[in-house]
Amino acid sequence: MKKHIHAVVIFILTGIGSFAQTKAPEIKDDFQPSELNQPGKEYPMVNSQGYARFRIEAPEAKSVVVSLGLGGTKGGTPLTKNDDGVWMGTTSGPMDEGFHYYHVTIDGGVFNDPGALNYYGSARWESGIEIPAHDQDFYALRDVPHGNVQQILFPSPSTGTSRRAFVYTPPGYSKSQSKRYPVLYLQHGWGEDETAWTNQGRANLIMDNLIAEGKTEPFIIVMTYGMTNDTKFGGLRDFKIEPFQTVLVDELMPYVDEHFRTIPGQAHRAMAGLSMGGMETKMITLARPDVFAYYALLSGGTYKPEEIKDKSQVDLIFLSCGSRENPDGVRSAADALRKAGVNAVSFVSENTAHEFQTWRRSLRELAPLLFKN
Amino acid sequence: MKKHIHAVVIFILTGIGSFAQTKAPEIKDDFQPSELNQPGKEYPMVNSQGYARFRIEAPEAKSVVVSLGLGGTKGGTPLTKNDDGVWMGTTSGPMDEGFHYYHVTIDGGVFNDPGALNYYGSARWESGIEIPAHDQDFYALRDVPHGNVQQILFPSPSTGTSRRAFVYTPPGYSKSQSKRYPVLYLQHGWGEDETAWTNQGRANLIMDNLIAEGKTEPFIIVMTYGMTNDTKFGGLRDFKIEPFQTVLVDELMPYVDEHFRTIPGQAHRAMAGLSMGGMETKMITLARPDVFAYYALLSGGTYKPEEIKDKSQVDLIFLSCGSRENPDGVRSAADALRKAGVNAVSFVSENTAHEFQTWRRSLRELAPLLFKN
Repeated sequence: MKKHIHAVVIFILTGIGSFAQTKAPEIKDDFQPSELNQPGKEYPMVNSQGYARFRIEAPEAKSVVVSLGLGGTKGGTPLTKNDDGVWMGTTSGPMDEGFHYYHVTIDGGVFNDPGALNYYGSARWESGIEIPAHDQDFYALRDVPHGNVQQILFPSPSTGTSRRAFVYTPPGYSKSQSKRYPVLYLQHGWGEDETAWTNQGRANLIMDNLIAEGKTEPFIIVMTYGMTNDTKFGGLRDFKIEPFQTVLVDELMPYVDEHFRTIPGQAHRAMAGLSMGGMETKMITLARPDVFAYYALLSGGTYKPEEIKDKSQVDLIFLSCGSRENPDGVRSAADALRKAGVNAVSFVSENTAHEFQTWRRSLRELAPLLFKN
Repeated sequence: MKKHIHAVVIFILTGIGSFAQTKAPEIKDDFQPSELNQPGKEYPMVNSQGYARFRIEAPEAKSVVVSLGLGGTKGGTPLTKNDDGVWMGTTSGPMDEGFHYYHVTIDGGVFNDPGALNYYGSARWESGIEIPAHDQDFYALRDVPHGNVQQILFPSPSTGTSRRAFVYTPPGYSKSQSKRYPVLYLQHGWGEDETAWTNQGRANLIMDNLIAEGKTEPFIIVMTYGMTNDTKFGGLRDFKIEPFQTVLVDELMPYVDEHFRTIPGQAHRAMAGLSMGGMETKMITLARPDVFAYYALLSGGTYKPEEIKDKSQVDLIFLSCGSRENPDGVRSAADALRKAGVNAVSFVSENTAHEFQTWRRSLRELAPLLFKN
């Protein structure tokens, strides 16, 4: 961990714009394929300090630049063509631990890295890269009993279609014929979709591991697409909560209660969301306090005490963010809620920003706090 | 349908190598976005004759060529840069109905089309395009009760890891607490993986629709990755069936029987596979006649009567291919099996080749024949 912090300091001192490649002494030569590479692909690679190295074949191209998303090294990493006609380059500094979106700009066009798997973010399927983290065991695929993630297609009269959701059922769910479970409705962020929490977030593995360690009671997680304005895809400007609230509360929820062994009722339901999904969580939980008892905003804003009309209906408010976001705002909001008599908990993910490592850790902290009433 | 055949004839007469673009009169101006585009993306587009039109932004590129997979117009479709710096082009002829893989070569490098969704084929995630078919209703997302597709992670001691499979459970499965179902084990082709049958093949929608129309009894489908030699990823040369047979028969099957409401036993199990998955199906069904009662090879070879040691153990052999493959071989193999006393059925998909439209139709024909004993 110290090594990582040290590397961050070096990065800040040396700044962006210089090629890390040319300052070889400080970059460790222990690069390994990113674990999110397509099967059999060697590049992109990452080293133990969090540097990423890219390799793109495009022998006739004029320019190849890798752009990393939030939490990566800001700006582009231009690649250089070697004698074999292959473009190579290394980030100018180490990246945050965890998952990052990126893409490659080739001669002015935006493409994905053929070496990497794709993840839905920024309203498109983007390349993904994983920087090994000091605490990565909590979301690793381990030899423990595994729950299942299943795709359901539920009828949505309000939007005139069948809509997709993913449902995590914990280990043991399919063996038992009678045990019933509480439910967490878990929302993605802007530009993402219902695949994000399991693909990028590894919500299923986080739950499998927590349950195997006895740290949380098993519960069901339901993830669906949080935008209903598909014709203006990805637009936030005209976003209204009512259409999604109808889909979630009046269409998806009854379907889930009918087709899965849930414990129905407000006391056994939680809603959480990251970023835009936090905004949705706040709006829906406040508009329908009869539906959820547990609220969680992950890098997604805060509640003020005066916004909670009937505090006796709220069993938990969980607020979190990365240490590079607004940790003081999250902590002070939780303090104010507690002073007003609400059971509020804050969590700050160290050395992360508005990115999935923050939200993986947030889910790890949130799960054990749910359904305690 | 007549229109489509007409277009095919024109394509054969005019040949490949001429730009359809420059023969505008024969190409209908009714292009629509492919239904496999990423949300909100207009291109690629397809017209009612089966032509595909591509649009790639790469203003500084020297050359952009679209390569379509088997069953498309063979060879590349070079795009031309217009005055806005955007590369555009149309296939030189109509494509087969159904699903096609493709990729884009930009200045010598192979990338995916940022407009299209990706599908795992050729041992990489490739762009996909869907040509509307005259019979597309059978695999469309319709307003009928839907089964679920769930990801399971099952322990595999023989390969030292947790392996992934997808399990289709039919509509009604999750509501019932007691009804048990037979199981079809369904394998993908070379370079594909366990996502192919639902993503490219739409196996779940085909089943939902058949069940809604009363054409088939509901059953469970299990799909897992058919290669175990991950270190030589995608290699067929060193392929041995034993490692995969162990995973399928000794590890996955007991897990499925334990975690799902199956009817265990040989009489209630089928195995089918497309292409390389057909080869696997043949090898495993012949090696383990005690395990499966129904065998199906989809563009995946044939059985000879003398290969079936105990014909009383085989309830059905189903052989299929596209009319552009080897239909006579498939038909005569089924004839020979029938003469030898085996219940054999052949199916030929009209006007398709070694491609998913053949296999979608094959599943539609196969499902009603299964589990009749």
